[in-house]
Amino acid sequence: MADEIVPPANELAAVALGNDGSTVKRAEFSNRVLIKSILGRPDGGATLAGQKVRIGGWVKSGREQGKGAFAFLAVNDGSCPANLQVMVDSSLYDLSKLVATGTCVTVEGVLKLPPEGKDKQMIELSVEKVIDVGTVEAKYPLPKTKLTLEFLRDMLHLRPRTNSISAIARIRNALAFATHSFFQEHSFLYVHTPIITTSDCEGAGEMFQVTTLINHTEQVEKDLIVNPPPTEADVEAARLIVKEKGAAVAQLKAADASKQEIKASVDELTIAKANLAQVEERSKLKPGLPKKDGKIDYSNDFFSRQAFLTVSGQLQVETYACALSSVYTFGPTFRAENSHTTRHLAEFWMVEPEIAFADLQDDMNCAEAYVKYMCKWLLEKCYDDMELMAKNFDRGCIERLQLVASTPFGRITYTEAVELLERAVAEGKKFENKVEWGVDLASEHERYLTEVMFQKPVIVYNYPKGIKAFYMRLNDDGKTVAAMDVLVPKVGELIGGSQREERYDVITQRIKEMGLPIEPYKWYIDLRRYGTVKHCGFGLGFERMILFATGIDNIRDVIPFPRYPGKADL
Amino acid sequence: MADEIVPPANELAAVALGNDGSTVKRAEFSNRVLIKSILGRPDGGATLAGQKVRIGGWVKSGREQGKGAFAFLAVNDGSCPANLQVMVDSSLYDLSKLVATGTCVTVEGVLKLPPEGKDKQMIELSVEKVIDVGTVEAKYPLPKTKLTLEFLRDMLHLRPRTNSISAIARIRNALAFATHSFFQEHSFLYVHTPIITTSDCEGAGEMFQVTTLINHTEQVEKDLIVNPPPTEADVEAARLIVKEKGAAVAQLKAADASKQEIKASVDELTIAKANLAQVEERSKLKPGLPKKDGKIDYSNDFFSRQAFLTVSGQLQVETYACALSSVYTFGPTFRAENSHTTRHLAEFWMVEPEIAFADLQDDMNCAEAYVKYMCKWLLEKCYDDMELMAKNFDRGCIERLQLVASTPFGRITYTEAVELLERAVAEGKKFENKVEWGVDLASEHERYLTEVMFQKPVIVYNYPKGIKAFYMRLNDDGKTVAAMDVLVPKVGELIGGSQREERYDVITQRIKEMGLPIEPYKWYIDLRRYGTVKHCGFGLGFERMILFATGIDNIRDVIPFPRYPGKADL
Repeated sequence: MADEIVPPANELAAVALGNDGSTVKRAEFSNRVLIKSILGRPDGGATLAGQKVRIGGWVKSGREQGKGAFAFLAVNDGSCPANLQVMVDSSLYDLSKLVATGTCVTVEGVLKLPPEGKDKQMIELSVEKVIDVGTVEAKYPLPKTKLTLEFLRDMLHLRPRTNSISAIARIRNALAFATHSFFQEHSFLYVHTPIITTSDCEGAGEMFQVTTLINHTEQVEKDLIVNPPPTEADVEAARLIVKEKGAAVAQLKAADASKQEIKASVDELTIAKANLAQVEERSKLKPGLPKKDGKIDYSNDFFSRQAFLTVSGQLQVETYACALSSVYTFGPTFRAENSHTTRHLAEFWMVEPEIAFADLQDDMNCAEAYVKYMCKWLLEKCYDDMELMAKNFDRGCIERLQLVASTPFGRITYTEAVELLERAVAEGKKFENKVEWGVDLASEHERYLTEVMFQKPVIVYNYPKGIKAFYMRLNDDGKTVAAMDVLVPKVGELIGGSQREERYDVITQRIKEMGLPIEPYKWYIDLRRYGTVKHCGFGLGFERMILFATGIDNIRDVIPFPRYPGKADL
Repeated sequence: MADEIVPPANELAAVALGNDGSTVKRAEFSNRVLIKSILGRPDGGATLAGQKVRIGGWVKSGREQGKGAFAFLAVNDGSCPANLQVMVDSSLYDLSKLVATGTCVTVEGVLKLPPEGKDKQMIELSVEKVIDVGTVEAKYPLPKTKLTLEFLRDMLHLRPRTNSISAIARIRNALAFATHSFFQEHSFLYVHTPIITTSDCEGAGEMFQVTTLINHTEQVEKDLIVNPPPTEADVEAARLIVKEKGAAVAQLKAADASKQEIKASVDELTIAKANLAQVEERSKLKPGLPKKDGKIDYSNDFFSRQAFLTVSGQLQVETYACALSSVYTFGPTFRAENSHTTRHLAEFWMVEPEIAFADLQDDMNCAEAYVKYMCKWLLEKCYDDMELMAKNFDRGCIERLQLVASTPFGRITYTEAVELLERAVAEGKKFENKVEWGVDLASEHERYLTEVMFQKPVIVYNYPKGIKAFYMRLNDDGKTVAAMDVLVPKVGELIGGSQREERYDVITQRIKEMGLPIEPYKWYIDLRRYGTVKHCGFGLGFERMILFATGIDNIRDVIPFPRYPGKADL
């Protein structure tokens, strides 16, 4: 049998340092040590002095010193916000090729304590060997001067190399894993709801269509140019041949011809009929989207019907909650809204837990615990990145996380919220939008409640049924539904949820009341016909959580590849 | 300020049992105890005898006994494959409403040891109070007789209530969390690559188009019926008015009229011009998709250009690897292939790590470690579900996981693989597809290598460049590229990966060689111009991993909502 490959021992030797706390550990799948495992130690790496390591990263800034005798490079590998200071002697490499911002270096050397009093670095790397260099050709597209987030939006492929976007990427990663950890710890099962859907949960106008029909149509049109469709005369001619062949068969039968003769004649008739069918079919081909009864005919589309990108996995994940009790989704969702705000994207990620045997109180408890968990997680695992956010974008972001992690959320009914806002108006507060029972709270009202009145997150619940979706559970008052929104400072609505209507008669009635057709929801109502269960859930806009945590203003900067009207780069 | 709600103490009392090991813990966000936390204990729950608990779940089977004096219900809440045996006295509830399969019950009672020698149950629940019942209306659509997975595919909303599909859901959840845990433990950052993309990585023919243009076209067509487009005469009339108004202005100016008079006349001219522009614009409106120079005009589509569903996040995630070193994606990907096999879906999930400062050896090491990690995870966390799979679908699936978790994978070059297969052919083995250097291995070859020759997973690497993608690193022999496929028993190809071509000149040359345009890849090549880095990565088809683990035959049964030609239910 063929040889099996084992990494050669000599390659490992230089970096395979011990695994106890006293030495740095080599990254398992790349021949180097992560800079985080040096600088991220409580002592900033000082106790590692004297150890030999290999590191790799990109030069954030470099300068030649001592009249070109050596160079200092600040190197970052993305594992943490801090750069490792790297010193290279000119005898080792052409220093002019190392110092340009953006250069990639893989180097080996010895960790040393920097000269007393110099810099803030606790440790630096004195290079003994330059292993690999990726130079910067021509002018680096990211200027050294302070880059704006807006400028970077047109450079999606290079912006992760900036301090801000890389810190946001680490925070986003941390929040995603915190999400999974939280729900797994509570025995929720992660369910992948569909991206392509034929269920329209909130009105097709705002949905993206998923199709192969345009491609199909273009192919038909191309084919029709090369190979024009049969004319009416062609069809008539084909029809005539069928008639003739039919007559021939009849004649042979009448003349008592041999079986062989008749069979041959019938075969000819069959061929003529098949040809006619084909000619007729092709004669119907027209340029443009295929139509039937004045409407687009989707029978040739991939799914043989109209299909869309999902706007929410909620209805589908309820089928799993009503079988496995506690479940959640975490996936992309889509809105084809022509919205140019700093709070909306055409493609964004949502977290949607759904809990069986649970009511609105449980729902609020879960939402509050989840948000607190994420705040604590960031404070524990991303403090250095949060410091960078505090320094560059939002001075108060760390205190905000601490407050939210430690303070019980306010909880008031919608009716109480309206009363509080009306009182504020009576006392002189001015809003652009009117406060009135039965009308949805505007963003300014939500932010006033959480930022000014409560100065902490607040959950508003029991909304008027007229402004909420059909699937929310009708309260005993007949006027409100068991819905809840979690409002947080800086962002406003972070979470929207509800107890679901589990009563077959009531939900059927509500669907009719709202003028919706029953048929598309038949499967959804089935969950209420067969072993129905009290259940609830909510949706958290994942990018909004990042905005809330970091204090970044524009949602386009907290997702790696933002999609919005006119823009879908890469 | 309004009252804050705290769950009433009396509600909690019944289930808030201690949190030490001796008592069961209440689920935090629903007022009950998970059946897993009773039956999942090492003693099967026996030591919990005497404790009072509330549970909820669905009746798997129920029967009245003692001439209707009491009923036994096997109740499942999805937290584990096992059912809790529940005994209800007829004095508590109308038993006929409880025993139907599919009924949902929430009950409170005392855990008791079952009578000696009876059943396999270690503990059962003697009900004291029936809290809530969701009855089964009419005939339950899932018959009790053995259901086939095929039958269940037409009942997506109810199939999670079956033993098989719920076990697969728990296994899928476990593998997803194992994936995140593995990469997070190794300091990889989770990156959300875009779902909607304008980059076409592998040929638009197989991609789904994402569009709002059909909707837009239908609206234009509707509008044209209500409001017909201007005729050529209408346009001419509007043009004439502009001419007249222009002449009037000229006349007034020539006649030295007052500023006021001239201004009034110029205003009229401006209005006439605006009207003409509108009439001309509307006169161009036609039914059908908008066209320009014979091609579809996407300027009115949502992203102002043609957009697709992603087929892979690799190229995009490389932008993050070339900044943050070790990253991975885990998200949905799409193929519009008209494929009806048991191995293909139109929508499926992929895991794609990408590692900087790493070569093909590192890539293979990572792939092997990841697959082993998942196998161990399942053996540790889902043994009971795996037993169900072994019993119902694939007797050998547990041994397969144990083998893969503990045995080093084979590693051979493509050239060696071809030699081995040629030798097998020479010794009499028959294949449908020819074995020949330069031609891709067929599925039968892959499975022969892993199942018959190696009898364990095997990694084949260094493939001929002609059968692999442009971005794979050219080896020094000039004939092969640093690609690798992980082949596993039962499934064949589970993982495909490669070291990426990091050399600017070589990748540019390869793109040209393969007849691809440079322009769409400009951003991708930029990564090679500015601080290029040795890097590699791979993609694992998540559903294939589940097929491999469970031994299930059809990929449509291991994803909650399968999408394939003609089918996108819910």
